[in-house]
Amino acid sequence: MEKKDENEYITVKKGENFSEWYSQVLLKSGFIDHSEVSGCLVFRPSAYGTWQIVMDAVDKEFKEDGVEDTYFPLLIPERFLRKEQEHLEGFSPEVAWVTHTGDSKLEERLAIRPTSETIMYVSFAKWIRSWRDLPIRYNQWNNVLRWEFKHPVPFIRSREFLWNEGHSVFATKEEAIKERDSILNIYEKVLREYLALPGIVGKKTDKEKFAGAVETYSIEHIMPDGWAIQGPDHHFDGQNFSKAFGIKFLDKSGNSDYGWQTTYAISTRELGTMVATHGDDKGLVIPPKVAYIQAVIVPIYKKGNEAAVNDYAREVYKSLKGHCRIKLDDREGYTPGYKFNDWEMKGIPIRIEIGAREMESKSVVVVRRDTGQKKEVKMEHLVKSIGSEFEEMQESMYRKAEGFLKSHIHEAKDYDDFKNIIKEKGGIIHAPWCGSRECEDKVKEETSAKITNIPIKQGKPSGKCIYCGKKAEFMANFARSY
Amino acid sequence: MEKKDENEYITVKKGENFSEWYSQVLLKSGFIDHSEVSGCLVFRPSAYGTWQIVMDAVDKEFKEDGVEDTYFPLLIPERFLRKEQEHLEGFSPEVAWVTHTGDSKLEERLAIRPTSETIMYVSFAKWIRSWRDLPIRYNQWNNVLRWEFKHPVPFIRSREFLWNEGHSVFATKEEAIKERDSILNIYEKVLREYLALPGIVGKKTDKEKFAGAVETYSIEHIMPDGWAIQGPDHHFDGQNFSKAFGIKFLDKSGNSDYGWQTTYAISTRELGTMVATHGDDKGLVIPPKVAYIQAVIVPIYKKGNEAAVNDYAREVYKSLKGHCRIKLDDREGYTPGYKFNDWEMKGIPIRIEIGAREMESKSVVVVRRDTGQKKEVKMEHLVKSIGSEFEEMQESMYRKAEGFLKSHIHEAKDYDDFKNIIKEKGGIIHAPWCGSRECEDKVKEETSAKITNIPIKQGKPSGKCIYCGKKAEFMANFARSY
Repeated sequence: MEKKDENEYITVKKGENFSEWYSQVLLKSGFIDHSEVSGCLVFRPSAYGTWQIVMDAVDKEFKEDGVEDTYFPLLIPERFLRKEQEHLEGFSPEVAWVTHTGDSKLEERLAIRPTSETIMYVSFAKWIRSWRDLPIRYNQWNNVLRWEFKHPVPFIRSREFLWNEGHSVFATKEEAIKERDSILNIYEKVLREYLALPGIVGKKTDKEKFAGAVETYSIEHIMPDGWAIQGPDHHFDGQNFSKAFGIKFLDKSGNSDYGWQTTYAISTRELGTMVATHGDDKGLVIPPKVAYIQAVIVPIYKKGNEAAVNDYAREVYKSLKGHCRIKLDDREGYTPGYKFNDWEMKGIPIRIEIGAREMESKSVVVVRRDTGQKKEVKMEHLVKSIGSEFEEMQESMYRKAEGFLKSHIHEAKDYDDFKNIIKEKGGIIHAPWCGSRECEDKVKEETSAKITNIPIKQGKPSGKCIYCGKKAEFMANFARSY
Repeated sequence: MEKKDENEYITVKKGENFSEWYSQVLLKSGFIDHSEVSGCLVFRPSAYGTWQIVMDAVDKEFKEDGVEDTYFPLLIPERFLRKEQEHLEGFSPEVAWVTHTGDSKLEERLAIRPTSETIMYVSFAKWIRSWRDLPIRYNQWNNVLRWEFKHPVPFIRSREFLWNEGHSVFATKEEAIKERDSILNIYEKVLREYLALPGIVGKKTDKEKFAGAVETYSIEHIMPDGWAIQGPDHHFDGQNFSKAFGIKFLDKSGNSDYGWQTTYAISTRELGTMVATHGDDKGLVIPPKVAYIQAVIVPIYKKGNEAAVNDYAREVYKSLKGHCRIKLDDREGYTPGYKFNDWEMKGIPIRIEIGAREMESKSVVVVRRDTGQKKEVKMEHLVKSIGSEFEEMQESMYRKAEGFLKSHIHEAKDYDDFKNIIKEKGGIIHAPWCGSRECEDKVKEETSAKITNIPIKQGKPSGKCIYCGKKAEFMANFARSY
C-alpha cells in the first residue's frame, strides 16, 4: 500500500506562515505547478476546471446583458501602444517583445498583449461611423502577459494570466457610466454565488486608477494575512482613448463626436483569493459550485468483499452521475486513509464513504470538507441530500468569509492609532480622507497602506482627514495590499 | 433610410471566383476583420460565438471520455524546443521569439507556443512516477502562433489560431492507439452535428504526418474549388517524445518504461471550412446549431402602426427567448429590405417577418436562409415549428455538403487520366498506391496533388500503383490541398 511521505503533507499552518502555506497548498494539492518561466503557471485540471466554471457563469450573465464575445490578436504592433501616452507609460516597462520570427528580424517589434485596448480600438475606429453602430459592447476571454514582478506569487502576481477584458463604446457619457453597475453586479454575484468571496465595491483614487482611465471602480477582498487584494474592476475611460484612436461617430443630429468608453475585467487572480480565503491546514477547500470534482466516492474494503463493495460503489456513482460532478476513486493499492487525505488536500467538497456497513444498510456516509461533519444518508435520499449539502456548504463558506472580512475592517481614533492598527492587526482601516494626493502619498510612504477604494456604500463623510486633519471629503479604505 | 452601397454587397459569385468570394463574404458579413499584423485575425461576435459553441460541444464529449482541461504557459524556453529533433525542425522556422521584456534583454529566448508538446512534457516528466499516475489525458483550449505562411488566408492559413491540443500519456501502446477512435469519433460527431461538415477519416503518409509522430490520422474535407483541406487530427507519438523528455514510469512489475503518447487537435480552421462549404452568393449560411444568433425578427411597418408592430414583435421575441438564440432587429432608420439583406449576408439561419397581416392573424412568416423557403406559422406553434426548422436545415445542410464531397471523389483510369482530373475537375482522386515515398513525391511534383490520407473505410487495395504500376498496397486519396 502506498503511504504519503511527509512532503505530500502541508508542513506549516495557515495561521502561522501564510505565504509558505499558500505556496505548499497550491503545489501539493496539484492545483498548479510552476513552469521554468518564472511567473508563468501551469493550471492543472482543478484550477482550470474552476476557471472554466467562473468563465461560463460570467459569460452567461454578460450575454444576457448584451455583451458579445470576440477574439483579437495576441500581438500588437509597437506603434499602436504609442498612441495613448498614459497607457503606454503604464504598460511599456512590462511588455514582452517579439522581435524575430524564425530566423528573420521583424521590421516592427510586436508586443504580446498586456491588455488589448490599443489593438481593439484601431478596429473600433474603422467600424464605427454613426450612432447606429453604437453601442459596441465587446468582450474577450484570453491570456495576457505583464512582465512586471520581481517576485511572482501564483495567481496573485503572475506574469501570464487569464481574464476577460470587456471593451465598450457608447454614444453618451451617461450610458458609459451606467454600464458600471450592471458589470460590477455580475462580478459581485459570481464572486458570491460561485467563488464564495465577499468584496467591497468602491471607487479607486486618481493615484490608483487604471492607466488611461477617468474613473476606476473595483471590488476589494481581504486575504488571511490581513492584506487587501484587488478583485475585478470597471473603468470609465471617458474620451481618452477615443480621441487617441479616432473613434468618432455622427450623432442623430449629424454632429461628429468621440465615443465614450469603458473597460472591465475579472482574472484568474480570483483563484488565488479563493484558495487563500477558504483553504485550511489540511489543504484546499473549494466551494461546491466551482469544484471541478464536487464529490468523490471512496470504497472501504474488508478482506474478500472488494468486488461487492466495488459494485455498490458503482451503483452509488451511477445514481449521482448527471446530478453532480462525481468521481469514483477505485484506485488499487492505496489505503482509504491515503485517499481521504488526498481528496481533503485537493479540497473536494464532499467525500462519500462506502463500506460493508453502508452496503448492508443501503446507505452511504457523507463527509463535508469544510466542517468535517459526517452524515449517514440512505440511497433513496442521496441525490437530494447531496444537493442540499452543496448549497449549505456554499452558503456557509460565504458567510464565514464575509465574517472574516467584516472583522478586519477597523476604525482608527487618530493617525497614531492608524499606524498601530496597520502594524499590529493589519486589515482595512475605514477612515476619513481629505481627498488630497499629498495625504494619500504620505500615508503610503509612512505605513505602506494605500487606499484600496472609496466604498460606494457609505454615508456622508464625517470627521477630519486621518492624516492632515482637514475636513474629510471621503471615507476611504486604507490597507496594505497585494 | 439607409441603403446599402455597392461595397456592402458581395460582388463576385462563389462559383466564379471562389477565393475573392471567400474573402468578401468573411469581411462584408462582419464575421472577421483583418488586423494590421498579417495573418492574425479579428474574430467578431459571429465567428467567436460559433467557435464557443464548437468548443463547448467538443469539451463536453472530451470530459465524458475522461479528458481533463488544463492551461500551460504561452512562452516556451528555447532549450525545451531543442529536445526533440524532428519536432524542432518542423517548427523552428515558424516560431515567434520573445527576446526582450520592457527594456531588458532576456538571457534565453522564449518561443510563443506553436504547439505545447515541449512545455507540457517537461511537466509530465516531473509528475509521472508509476503506472498509478497513468493515463494522463490533458487538454487545453488556447491560442498558438506559427509564422509560416507568406500569403495568409483567414482561418485556412492563419498565423495565430485557436484550437484544442490534447496530450495523453498511457502505460501501454495499445491504450494509446485505442484513444484514436474515441477522439476521432468526437471530432466527426461535432463536425457533422454542429458544423454540418462531412469528412474522410484516414491515415496520413509518413511524408505528411506530424513532426515527431509515429502515425497521424486526419479528417479531410473538400472545399468548393475542389481543393482538399485538412481538418482535425490525432497523432500516435509512440515513445518519441517520452524518450526525449524522460517521461518514465514503473509498471506493475516494477520495470521502468517510457510512456506511450498521443496528441490531437481541432482548430478554428474549421470555421473557414464551414464558411466556404455552406456560403452562397448572398453571403454566409451558418448551420443553426452553431449560429450565435439563430433567428432574427424583422418588423415591417406601415405608416402609423410602428408601435403596435413593435409590441407584437416583442411578444414574439419573448415567446422564443430561452428556446433559441433570438434577436429582435428594431433598429430605426433601416428599411426591411436592408435588414433582410444584412441578416442574409451574415448567414443567420431563420428570419422572422412580422407586419400588419401577421399581427392580425397572430402569426409570423418564417424564412429559411439556406433555401429561401417561406412559411406562415401561427404563434401557438412557433416554438415547436422553429425547432423543427432548425433541425431540418441542419440536416439538409449536412446532406448537401456530403453530396458535394461524394461527387468530388473520382477514380482515375491511369496516370494520364489522373493528371487530367486534377487539372480539369479538381477534387479527390481515390487511387491505388504502392506505398513508396518516391511515387508520392513524383505525383506531388508533377501534379501538385499530395496524398491527403488513406481512408480507413476501404476494402482490400486493388490494381496497380497509379504512378509506378507496381502492386498497390493502399487505396490513397490524392488531391491538391490547402
